Amino acid sequence: MTANSFHPPERTLMGPGPSDVHPRILEALSRPTIGHLDPVFVGMMEEVKGLLQYAFQTENALTLPVSAPGSAGMEMCFANLVEPGDTVVVCKNGVFGERMKENVERCGGTPVMVEEEWGAPVDPARAEEALKAHPEAKILAFVHAETSTGAQSDAATLAKLARDHDCLTIVDTVTSLGGSPLKVDEWGLDAVYSGTQKCLSCVPGLSPVTFSQRAVDAIQARSTKVQSWFLDLNLVMGYWGSGGGKRAYHHTAPINPLYGLHEALTILQEEGLENTWDRHQRMHEALKAGIEAMGLSFFVEEPHRLPQLNSVTIPAGIDDEAAVRTRLLEQYNLEIGAGLGSMAGKIWRIGLMGHSANPTNILNCLGALEGVLSDMGADITTGKAISAAMAKLG
Amino acid sequence: MTANSFHPPERTLMGPGPSDVHPRILEALSRPTIGHLDPVFVGMMEEVKGLLQYAFQTENALTLPVSAPGSAGMEMCFANLVEPGDTVVVCKNGVFGERMKENVERCGGTPVMVEEEWGAPVDPARAEEALKAHPEAKILAFVHAETSTGAQSDAATLAKLARDHDCLTIVDTVTSLGGSPLKVDEWGLDAVYSGTQKCLSCVPGLSPVTFSQRAVDAIQARSTKVQSWFLDLNLVMGYWGSGGGKRAYHHTAPINPLYGLHEALTILQEEGLENTWDRHQRMHEALKAGIEAMGLSFFVEEPHRLPQLNSVTIPAGIDDEAAVRTRLLEQYNLEIGAGLGSMAGKIWRIGLMGHSANPTNILNCLGALEGVLSDMGADITTGKAISAAMAKLG
Repeated sequence: MTANSFHPPERTLMGPGPSDVHPRILEALSRPTIGHLDPVFVGMMEEVKGLLQYAFQTENALTLPVSAPGSAGMEMCFANLVEPGDTVVVCKNGVFGERMKENVERCGGTPVMVEEEWGAPVDPARAEEALKAHPEAKILAFVHAETSTGAQSDAATLAKLARDHDCLTIVDTVTSLGGSPLKVDEWGLDAVYSGTQKCLSCVPGLSPVTFSQRAVDAIQARSTKVQSWFLDLNLVMGYWGSGGGKRAYHHTAPINPLYGLHEALTILQEEGLENTWDRHQRMHEALKAGIEAMGLSFFVEEPHRLPQLNSVTIPAGIDDEAAVRTRLLEQYNLEIGAGLGSMAGKIWRIGLMGHSANPTNILNCLGALEGVLSDMGADITTGKAISAAMAKLG
Repeated sequence: MTANSFHPPERTLMGPGPSDVHPRILEALSRPTIGHLDPVFVGMMEEVKGLLQYAFQTENALTLPVSAPGSAGMEMCFANLVEPGDTVVVCKNGVFGERMKENVERCGGTPVMVEEEWGAPVDPARAEEALKAHPEAKILAFVHAETSTGAQSDAATLAKLARDHDCLTIVDTVTSLGGSPLKVDEWGLDAVYSGTQKCLSCVPGLSPVTFSQRAVDAIQARSTKVQSWFLDLNLVMGYWGSGGGKRAYHHTAPINPLYGLHEALTILQEEGLENTWDRHQRMHEALKAGIEAMGLSFFVEEPHRLPQLNSVTIPAGIDDEAAVRTRLLEQYNLEIGAGLGSMAGKIWRIGLMGHSANPTNILNCLGALEGVLSDMGADITTGKAISAAMAKLG
């Protein structure tokens, strides 16, 4: 095989992530690589920690980006907090709750499942029932923003319930961080993981995490070693200087992706977290107006919808939904997401994440979708979506 | 805290990695991000697999880059091949053999250690003794190129011994891949992991791995689940399309770092693997001539020295070796490596890896080192290093 340099097409990314990466972040990736123990790099790492504390709205000292994708951030939370024999109440309302169950089992723990219909939020009353029925439970785990459906759960209420039952929380915020309100300290979340390729608009490959002092105490009180060497927080803390004392070599940090994350978080700070949340909400309103003007409907009930991830029900007349996505990609360079797991063939997932949440993308998406759907014989209303969206964009 | 965009200095990287990243690779990192399930991206992934097969000199179908640094590649090999109760003979002649032991233990295995002096290669006769004494052993694990000392072990001989005793091999090639001869199929290695930030001159954060059919058979015959969800090859194979069948979503691949790896491997293919190995050897000869002309000595005996990682004994007259490295970094923007573990304060590690292995770097390094060392009162010979190196460079 002979390979040539790879030059990707320029896409508009409106799926469930990655989102459009800001040009400033792409440029940051290409800055000169320096050593991972270089004092200048160590100074940048400190800034990344501080910026992540802002993004997570926390003062947790143990706040850092794991050197691997969100799945590894998830595993870091479970592998460090779950010891063999521990009971974990896992709330599942989509694909990512199922992964939590897998993680608990692989750590030797016993999951107690609280299952909801896909598209619904976690029901705090049912979570409470499970906590009452399992007083031995050590952890309550749930997904704040379910990427497979676009449903948002009430993290503050769930965290309070967990504390009332003397449980720690493990919370998936992969899709919420930087997109909709997330307040780690105010809500009292304990072990929280996210990704960089959603509302931070950075490239995939890193997983921001934050741990409360209660979580750190539990990790330090373990009676067994963490089963993963790579994800052992006792070692990672030493490297990121979060355990106090001298910084110790653990692994080689992904230098250039961290330049990108630093730039992404700098952009977030410049815009301001609340302004960013507002922008996602406003863009969602505009997209929603257009989608509904076409006669399409949303899969998730209004009060629980995430602005950054819009699940739209596939309309009558479309038998081959993959063909729609292929035409959007090939004719308009536009990526939207398929349904995942049991949602396959039932919904599309339209992301409005980070840099992707802008008026140009909304008009492009509505126009392309209307054109392709009507051409393929879908039962939709034409000619109204753009003006409906424009009215909201103001 | 208010952060501004981070602009790193331009360093010359001659430590144990990361090495100087080729400008073509830095540029590739900044190309537009596309979706990780985009058919165009999937096509690039296929090319990366083919290019890695070339770099590893293997036809193994299961050859791919793990979406995390070399430590995770290491853990993938151990977590998938070691089941609770398994005996693993681990050869240790530096820091990275110790990590193998840690990995075996955390997977519930029993390590049998074969320890050598640091700086020496693994002794095949002692490895054979251990294999004979432990007929229950399932795996022989060793480091091909020990990054903490610069010593190279005879991977072909060790792999043959393992086969003779019906053992699989797990082999650390983090520092050898793309720098000195590594022939996975010819030598019969079974589970092999590496890094991208050494002789491939790419940014850190990915770990190329390759698995023989024997290793795949062993993984598929496991009686227990792999304890890591993120590193479970049964799932990763599905995502990278190495298990046959439809490509299944597992995690979001680090898109832009993979652009960088594709470019790094394209450059390797353009130069040709044997030419690359020759270049590393020639640059090593030139550096060695200069180092010896200064009166400095190498820590590793000549037959076992890696050309890409030169361990130099700290000369008499230097009490504070860290001050030397700080002056090199601050005055010359030159990074060389400290000793690691028990080698701290005894050696420096000068890398000649990938794009860093060039005449300009050698002259820069020799000149700066001679200047700083003589200024700091080291017992060295001055005025001869550059001409000695030039004579070798031709």
